[in-house]
Amino acid sequence: MASHSTTRVLSADEFKAAFREHPAGVAVITATADGERVALTATSVASVSAEPPLIMFSVSALSSSTPTILKAETVVIHLLNSDQLPIAKLGATHGIDRFADETIWSTFDSGEPYFHGVRAWIRGRVLSRTPAGGSAVILVEALEAKVVDETHPPLVYFDRTWHSLGDHSRIEGV
Amino acid sequence: MASHSTTRVLSADEFKAAFREHPAGVAVITATADGERVALTATSVASVSAEPPLIMFSVSALSSSTPTILKAETVVIHLLNSDQLPIAKLGATHGIDRFADETIWSTFDSGEPYFHGVRAWIRGRVLSRTPAGGSAVILVEALEAKVVDETHPPLVYFDRTWHSLGDHSRIEGV
Repeated sequence: MASHSTTRVLSADEFKAAFREHPAGVAVITATADGERVALTATSVASVSAEPPLIMFSVSALSSSTPTILKAETVVIHLLNSDQLPIAKLGATHGIDRFADETIWSTFDSGEPYFHGVRAWIRGRVLSRTPAGGSAVILVEALEAKVVDETHPPLVYFDRTWHSLGDHSRIEGV
Repeated sequence: MASHSTTRVLSADEFKAAFREHPAGVAVITATADGERVALTATSVASVSAEPPLIMFSVSALSSSTPTILKAETVVIHLLNSDQLPIAKLGATHGIDRFADETIWSTFDSGEPYFHGVRAWIRGRVLSRTPAGGSAVILVEALEAKVVDETHPPLVYFDRTWHSLGDHSRIEGV
């Protein structure tokens, strides 16, 4: 068993090794500010509260999308199906134009870019941006949401690999 | 397409319908404060930053474990395998003694209860507790972690059902 000192802090490598063991649904977050459009793949999206409807996620200072996310008043959080793996990879690849293919996205009347054909999307207003280590925690109030396509299996990221959920992965009804 | 007013806020039911579409790894969080021991199942655990190693999760004011979590100086976050579904259900069931079976948990030298045989655990110090709607967002600095058993498939919660990941769910290597 490891030592139980309360002062020792884990190394980044030890921490990453533990968190590789935690599966997560895959989201792509889009936003616009100061004429910049960004799209960022995130595995940190979670529901915080249903009344009021609040969502949180974190963004790393290392991501080129983060300055725009931090300036944006609203964001769109897309939940992805496994057939949207190309969109997940698009939002996770450095140095490319994530909006180059104009057939896969449009712009809401409220200004944010959004991707077509995702599992569900939630558009929300940023309530707070809290610095946390090399990242920021973003708290969002949901303004509207749409379940677009729930017929395909959802996309999950785990241990640096992609998975899909469905009857093949179900272990028990509740 | 839905209306794009920036002021309309989703109903709790609309919000829950969208978030049912978001899969999540399953964690059980334990803590102790003022002589109380608690265990709480959470699907909101996410890594925030690797340097320093930070984790976030949210707790609902409706959970009986929340007052103790909010008072605790440290917590243990357990990541679960699918064969630990009974522990996940234990931490999600109201009105039961979650520590009644003394064969499945022990106490760290530092005082926190922890469950045996989980996929991985991370012990950390609570840095902040931020009220957010009917919940609180807890930010934790990881002090130590251990991958206990990565040979079994991890547990995922999705659309009110439990799933397991493995070769059967993998869609593509990276």
